[in-house]
Amino acid sequence: MNMSATVRILGIDPGSRVTGFGIIDVRGRDHFYVASGCIKTPADEPLADRIAVIVRHIGEVVAVYKPQQAAVEQVFVNVNPASTLMLGQARGAALAALVSHKLPVSEYTALQVKQAVVGKGKAAKEQVQHMVVQMLGLSGTPQADAADGLAVALTHALRNHGLAAKLNPSGMQVKRGRFQ
Amino acid sequence: MNMSATVRILGIDPGSRVTGFGIIDVRGRDHFYVASGCIKTPADEPLADRIAVIVRHIGEVVAVYKPQQAAVEQVFVNVNPASTLMLGQARGAALAALVSHKLPVSEYTALQVKQAVVGKGKAAKEQVQHMVVQMLGLSGTPQADAADGLAVALTHALRNHGLAAKLNPSGMQVKRGRFQ
Repeated sequence: MNMSATVRILGIDPGSRVTGFGIIDVRGRDHFYVASGCIKTPADEPLADRIAVIVRHIGEVVAVYKPQQAAVEQVFVNVNPASTLMLGQARGAALAALVSHKLPVSEYTALQVKQAVVGKGKAAKEQVQHMVVQMLGLSGTPQADAADGLAVALTHALRNHGLAAKLNPSGMQVKRGRFQ
Repeated sequence: MNMSATVRILGIDPGSRVTGFGIIDVRGRDHFYVASGCIKTPADEPLADRIAVIVRHIGEVVAVYKPQQAAVEQVFVNVNPASTLMLGQARGAALAALVSHKLPVSEYTALQVKQAVVGKGKAAKEQVQHMVVQMLGLSGTPQADAADGLAVALTHALRNHGLAAKLNPSGMQVKRGRFQ
């Protein structure tokens, strides 16, 4: 019987056109893949509709997978101010959706994610994908944005060893996101 | 008996530190003040907590006043990219909160708001405040961000004359935000 509790983490990599997400279970120092994917927002639709797509899809992911914690990648300001504003709006919407579902949210810079997952801050996107595949024992390579979602979830796990024990001081077990 | 329907509009002026809101009732060509105020986000707290303040307060405003439509001011990109990103995040959170409550959202630029309320695009903030006071017959001057919230609600009303009639083709009456 495994006595250590499982914590489910939802990682989010916000983008103005594509928001990647990845869900992992963490038990002690082990990490297990649960799900990952992309939320694509239609670029030619009004902003409110694009925001609604992000809010609805994050709501669905939370409802289906019931993560207990969320980790969101911090975004870079773009050389194009209009792109920076759009990226900010998409990220604000993702954060709003997460806090609406009462999820505690941690933030990590791209540098922190690369250092945690690849071991150095200047890693290429392909290295992040590669390490996500290795660390989670995946049989295929997830799409880049989905891999970034998984990478930020892994970063949260790696930077918070002992997370599960701290979360369940009563010693209750958590399996597949539910107390048992 | 007044046969024309009333539409309640929530206007939002998003800001990185202060989000102004204003609620008006529109009946035909008449506008009535309902409420206004500011949502202040604590600058020294983590972003997720600031986003949570915006989401929670907009949720409370919607729950209490039950607006049927929302209008949000479009924001300017700032010379400072970090400020632009923060403003985008605050605006994205406000939009997410509105669409979560199934409110139809219209967007207006600051130029459109000034042209609608003051009659010229280059109006000073004080002129907007002054015209909001005049148009709604207020006994005092609302704080600048609250006045901007009311101004964007008025802009939506002024640019959509016949709004109420179009919304209620069945001829049902709406009073204080409820069908009767």
